[in-house]
Amino acid sequence: MSGSVGVHALVRRAHEERVLAILRERGGLSRAQISARSGLSRTTLSEITGELLARGAIVVVNTDAQLRAGSGRPAELLALDPRSGQFLGVDLGHTRARVAVADAAHEIIASGVEEYPPGSSWPWRLAAGVDLVDRIAREQGINLAALQGIGVGVAGPYPAGGSRADVLAAFASRFSAPVIVDNNTRFAALAEASDLGEPGGAVDAGDVLYVRLADGIGGGLVVGGRLVSGASGAAGEFGHVKVDPAGGVCRCGKRGCLETVAALRPALAAAGVRDLAELAARREEPRVRAAMDRVADALGRVLADAALILNPGQIVIGGPLPHAVPAIVARAGAVIAAELISVGAGPLIRAARLGDDDGARGAITACFRQSPLLADYPGAAFPAPASRTAVPVPRTPGSSS
Amino acid sequence: MSGSVGVHALVRRAHEERVLAILRERGGLSRAQISARSGLSRTTLSEITGELLARGAIVVVNTDAQLRAGSGRPAELLALDPRSGQFLGVDLGHTRARVAVADAAHEIIASGVEEYPPGSSWPWRLAAGVDLVDRIAREQGINLAALQGIGVGVAGPYPAGGSRADVLAAFASRFSAPVIVDNNTRFAALAEASDLGEPGGAVDAGDVLYVRLADGIGGGLVVGGRLVSGASGAAGEFGHVKVDPAGGVCRCGKRGCLETVAALRPALAAAGVRDLAELAARREEPRVRAAMDRVADALGRVLADAALILNPGQIVIGGPLPHAVPAIVARAGAVIAAELISVGAGPLIRAARLGDDDGARGAITACFRQSPLLADYPGAAFPAPASRTAVPVPRTPGSSS
Repeated sequence: MSGSVGVHALVRRAHEERVLAILRERGGLSRAQISARSGLSRTTLSEITGELLARGAIVVVNTDAQLRAGSGRPAELLALDPRSGQFLGVDLGHTRARVAVADAAHEIIASGVEEYPPGSSWPWRLAAGVDLVDRIAREQGINLAALQGIGVGVAGPYPAGGSRADVLAAFASRFSAPVIVDNNTRFAALAEASDLGEPGGAVDAGDVLYVRLADGIGGGLVVGGRLVSGASGAAGEFGHVKVDPAGGVCRCGKRGCLETVAALRPALAAAGVRDLAELAARREEPRVRAAMDRVADALGRVLADAALILNPGQIVIGGPLPHAVPAIVARAGAVIAAELISVGAGPLIRAARLGDDDGARGAITACFRQSPLLADYPGAAFPAPASRTAVPVPRTPGSSS
Repeated sequence: MSGSVGVHALVRRAHEERVLAILRERGGLSRAQISARSGLSRTTLSEITGELLARGAIVVVNTDAQLRAGSGRPAELLALDPRSGQFLGVDLGHTRARVAVADAAHEIIASGVEEYPPGSSWPWRLAAGVDLVDRIAREQGINLAALQGIGVGVAGPYPAGGSRADVLAAFASRFSAPVIVDNNTRFAALAEASDLGEPGGAVDAGDVLYVRLADGIGGGLVVGGRLVSGASGAAGEFGHVKVDPAGGVCRCGKRGCLETVAALRPALAAAGVRDLAELAARREEPRVRAAMDRVADALGRVLADAALILNPGQIVIGGPLPHAVPAIVARAGAVIAAELISVGAGPLIRAARLGDDDGARGAITACFRQSPLLADYPGAAFPAPASRTAVPVPRTPGSSS
């Protein structure tokens, strides 16, 4: 009878999310006030708040004894525990680890970053990620005893001898919570898609195509609000779509892949600059512009083909290259629009909004959605679907990845 | 409290599917036998069978009075009603309408096809579809009074002045059941993905990329077991991916789209043949082979790019062109495999299994999944997920579309 058990858990989780959404709006409410706002019965609410108190998600902040003096037991006021980390997101990049911690209402309450020493081994990177979590918790006064879920994004591919199992083992042995592991660029895609539930972002983010121009070119797809992993976990390989049959040899062995034109190294070489800072400084010079136009044209063609097939609502272009040269996004957008002219309404094409913590944020978002009951359940059945999936944190669009 | 109402309906529907799956395996069971096989309590089962009897999905086929003579009320034996249409699938193509009717356990119990007179108007095609349903019901003795859902696939795009609303109106006014409307090629994709739950098809069909080479080139994507419509309902436009920047002008206004090479008319012209029959007969001749190789190469490149991005478990190639020249599938498959060599395990690449009734079958499959409660609910929570989504009908792989 797993179906029935699951259904009860589903109802309880929906109620819990409703209570948390109310407490995020305003802390310090009595059960009577929460009951009035949520429409939940006192009995049901009492069960829910008991559970949330027990796992440390909420706390009793006060009693209004002064108001109720002499009239019996004072009503307890409840609020989110601002120090209780409930969800942990970790991004293990090639050069640094990033960590973010969220409370029960999905607000980021602590975060941090640490660069690895050059040449750090895979075990070292894993250990650095775990240590960084501990340090952040200690320094920022976060209690991790009640973690509900851990998401770890890893820059692909795994190094020789490394595997997903290592990641699961490293984090599951240190923290007692379920761990999910995925590609960090894919998590970034989820973060970009989810962030739009916030005020000011009134766009439907159910179908998002995200691509990231960095040392390599990866991407992520969100279809119907869900991250697409693909049949063998390899979805999002934009970098190896062919853009020039006569082009240079790619690290993958094929010729003329998008990466041979639009990844960081060939793009810098074509522009005749040493690094991103020089690229940004000289981006108006003819040679640099011509090289970046070529990047944008190749990128635009690949994204246009993908958009014809997937019909996304948004195309998000991120990574250090377009961050240094924003004109890449505009020009790729023009190419996409021209190719989609026959299709009618095209997608919104925009630069990524989030900074270098996008992978860690997306890992947290994936945790919220990880519940097998919630993940695939239609949002319409929930009273407050927006609060369930969005990661409402202050945006840091200016930070470099 | 829509959440709770929804959850109760979900549980009931899961139980109902379990009972129907048991009765599909073997009709003529008593409630005690169904209870023993389903694990449902007598009380719960009594509610479920009462509901199924009331809506005509099952019938009392017999009583075993002879076995129970003198021992009280004889036990009723229940079975699926073989004449009660519960789901209706209609495919309104450019040249003909196709209809299929399924019983409560998702078996096809009646079907038929009717060609339109040349030049038939849109209203005429709609009326022909409705009339065909009536005729099939009458001639094949099907009762449509208890329809649970109607799926109508339409060959896109809508003609001038025509719309989805016309389809909804035509079918909803004639039959009292919810109507869903989508592109018929997309429904065909769903049918190809779902059909594999059957014996002999042991492949995971959760991620399928389907393309159809006909007068135009359309396709459908099934991602995580669900049909992808896209943000504005335009997903699957494989035909307008560019394969040759210097190529011919497409009907969409762009140059060098896949359709300019691999749609029926240019493919026949390049091969120097008049029609599909001549194409099939002369397919080993050098000129015809060269033309079909060009079709396969262009198709393979487009599908390879799509596969890099989506990482499907299967790529299914259908439509009259590869049906006439099966070598197209093999050669396109080789191109795809070569392009995916860097990715690791590639998809299964195969010809479509279903015939011309794929759109009508997919429309029925979409009906099963249409319930907002079932559609997105993870299969794992159900005792018999396979029976819930597959369309278990005899295959007719040889029939032409």
